Amino acid sequence: MSNPSLLILPGDGIGAEVMVEVRRIIDWFGAKRDLVFDVSEDLVGGAAYDKHGTPLHDDTMAKAQEVDAVLLGAVGGPKYDDLDFSVKPERGLLRLRKEMDLFANLRPAQCFDALADFSSLKKDIVAGLDIMIVRELTSGVYFGEPRGIHMEDNMRVGVNTQRYTEAEIERGARAAFEMAMRRNKKLCSMEKANVMESGILWRDVVTEVHKDYPEVELSHMYADNGAMQLVRAPKQFDVIYTDNLFGDILSDCAAMLTGSLGMLPSASLGAPMANGRPKAMYEPVHGSAPDIMGQGKANPIACILSFAMALRYSFDQGDEATRLEAAIEKVLADGVRTGDLLGDEDTTPVSTSGMGDAILAAL
Amino acid sequence: MSNPSLLILPGDGIGAEVMVEVRRIIDWFGAKRDLVFDVSEDLVGGAAYDKHGTPLHDDTMAKAQEVDAVLLGAVGGPKYDDLDFSVKPERGLLRLRKEMDLFANLRPAQCFDALADFSSLKKDIVAGLDIMIVRELTSGVYFGEPRGIHMEDNMRVGVNTQRYTEAEIERGARAAFEMAMRRNKKLCSMEKANVMESGILWRDVVTEVHKDYPEVELSHMYADNGAMQLVRAPKQFDVIYTDNLFGDILSDCAAMLTGSLGMLPSASLGAPMANGRPKAMYEPVHGSAPDIMGQGKANPIACILSFAMALRYSFDQGDEATRLEAAIEKVLADGVRTGDLLGDEDTTPVSTSGMGDAILAAL
Ligand SMILES: CC(C)[C@H](C(=O)O)[C@@H](O)C(=O)O
Ligand SMILES: CC(C)[C@H](C(=O)O)[C@@H](O)C(=O)O
Repeated sequence: MSNPSLLILPGDGIGAEVMVEVRRIIDWFGAKRDLVFDVSEDLVGGAAYDKHGTPLHDDTMAKAQEVDAVLLGAVGGPKYDDLDFSVKPERGLLRLRKEMDLFANLRPAQCFDALADFSSLKKDIVAGLDIMIVRELTSGVYFGEPRGIHMEDNMRVGVNTQRYTEAEIERGARAAFEMAMRRNKKLCSMEKANVMESGILWRDVVTEVHKDYPEVELSHMYADNGAMQLVRAPKQFDVIYTDNLFGDILSDCAAMLTGSLGMLPSASLGAPMANGRPKAMYEPVHGSAPDIMGQGKANPIACILSFAMALRYSFDQGDEATRLEAAIEKVLADGVRTGDLLGDEDTTPVSTSGMGDAILAAL
Repeated sequence: MSNPSLLILPGDGIGAEVMVEVRRIIDWFGAKRDLVFDVSEDLVGGAAYDKHGTPLHDDTMAKAQEVDAVLLGAVGGPKYDDLDFSVKPERGLLRLRKEMDLFANLRPAQCFDALADFSSLKKDIVAGLDIMIVRELTSGVYFGEPRGIHMEDNMRVGVNTQRYTEAEIERGARAAFEMAMRRNKKLCSMEKANVMESGILWRDVVTEVHKDYPEVELSHMYADNGAMQLVRAPKQFDVIYTDNLFGDILSDCAAMLTGSLGMLPSASLGAPMANGRPKAMYEPVHGSAPDIMGQGKANPIACILSFAMALRYSFDQGDEATRLEAAIEKVLADGVRTGDLLGDEDTTPVSTSGMGDAILAAL
């Protein structure tokens, strides 16, 4: 049997430097745990635009469709701010999500014990926080038609369309209920059904899918109240299911609550492929952070934990994922910190590669 | 000359009980400060539906168009959850906003010194916080057509349309820049220009309007990053300008940061009327809180501060507004608290009317 395949797309900004550390971890699993991956690497985002004039070359897209999992760094940066919409770095990422049909975006918002002090929230509000946001990722206002800027009575008009079919809401809801079953059997669905008809359909469909998961306690919340409740008392939530745009905002809000932004991974999953593995892409929640790029300051942990998610969700290696996560927790408990996590406690500052060294040592 | 006119719409839940206290304050200004208002009262939301089968009767709409200012309590409640979308309590509120053309929604997010401990955020992150969010209120996905739920290939599809004309973005932007000029000359505009064309137009138009306000320091931020930054370091912001839907979520998030939710007023302003006053509606940021309705537990301060905003923005009585605000600050400094604000410090618990008494005494 051939080795499982991984396509690495470092992308822009700090993407390249954190991915170097991930590759060292991948190599360790090959050498020490007999988990050998066929790894290839390619361009996405501004890096792809610089070389090919497009944020995702067709060849790269084809490769992404063939591999077992994609690992992406980050896309975007001020250098590309003035590019036409159609070739902006983000279009590369969105094309991957859409063409691979990665409808279920899993975004854990987890507060690491050793880092609870980094939250802007009071420690007792966030200590032990562990939420999973399931964000619908391939539909909604991100992809709805009609869209664009046109002229009307001599005036520019900007249009985007929020559009959800029953089937789109349903398959994401199933992913969310499955996640709730694996966790604490508590799901909160968020929309604006008081203002948007697409939100009414959302609530309806989620309520129907609930019949197949009677053990899960389901609640509904308006997304504005959801933002409030996340700030007020985030531990009331376990799994949250919401749409592409609300999910973009609410998951970033939840991520920032934890104080552990440089630590948070994500998984974007689609339907099972012929080999039974889901189509999958893994990426850190943080962005390309162009301000600290190339200075050895980036925290590689979010990207390494994204690889841990790949081990768990794509390769059925939950024990190996746990091994990697435990190594990272140990390193943090030992006080090893990249620049984003330096406090006044007794900690050891390290560079991006220093953090890689420490994790390898702990493994 | 006739007295200025006020239409009071208590609405649902705690709306009625907080409005009783506001009327006592209004009466005080008539008796002691010679500021006599012609006050009328009517129904909106579920209360209007119960009586008329519609969340806003045409006669009420007509009255709202004629008065100098509308003061609204809150709308909505679980009792009305299963009503058809077209007669939900919220439709009454949205009709008022739309037909009065109240395009500029001013939402202060202010942390009251005496209450900084109530925030879920660390005290140093929120103490002294004072942000003004200017939310576009009459367009965007709240009102865009086409909208609704239709069948396609035997499946339900939910559609809403995000639509902004240049003129709509511009007039809200002018309101935001004017606000920035009265404050610290710092404006941050938020959209998702990396994903939505309507966001690109938004950024373009705001950048153009900036030419008329060169003294204001303008920045742009993606709305998801905006949510993060609000949680991370809210004091970096002074005035924020954003669209109807992002504004709904971000202003609730910002309001909750302060820990002073029961304290926050809002103003929704339109174009000047024949008498020079803007079309205007004032309402507390909090909702109808049906769980504590009728128990004398509601905090009337947000609604009273909404009346203070009316004094300032509709009636050019900035000094009287300041007088009222100072009375409220004194009451808080004295430790008088409704149930939502009780901590372990040395405070005096009061009912809704007890808070009204205390504010009148301080006046
Ligand atoms: C980079 C951008 C297109 C993307 C999004 O809006 O989905 C990002 O914010 C995210 O959440 O993954
Ligand atoms: C009640 C509801 C329609 C309203 C909105 O979504 O605008 C509320 O959340 C608000 O922010 O004023």
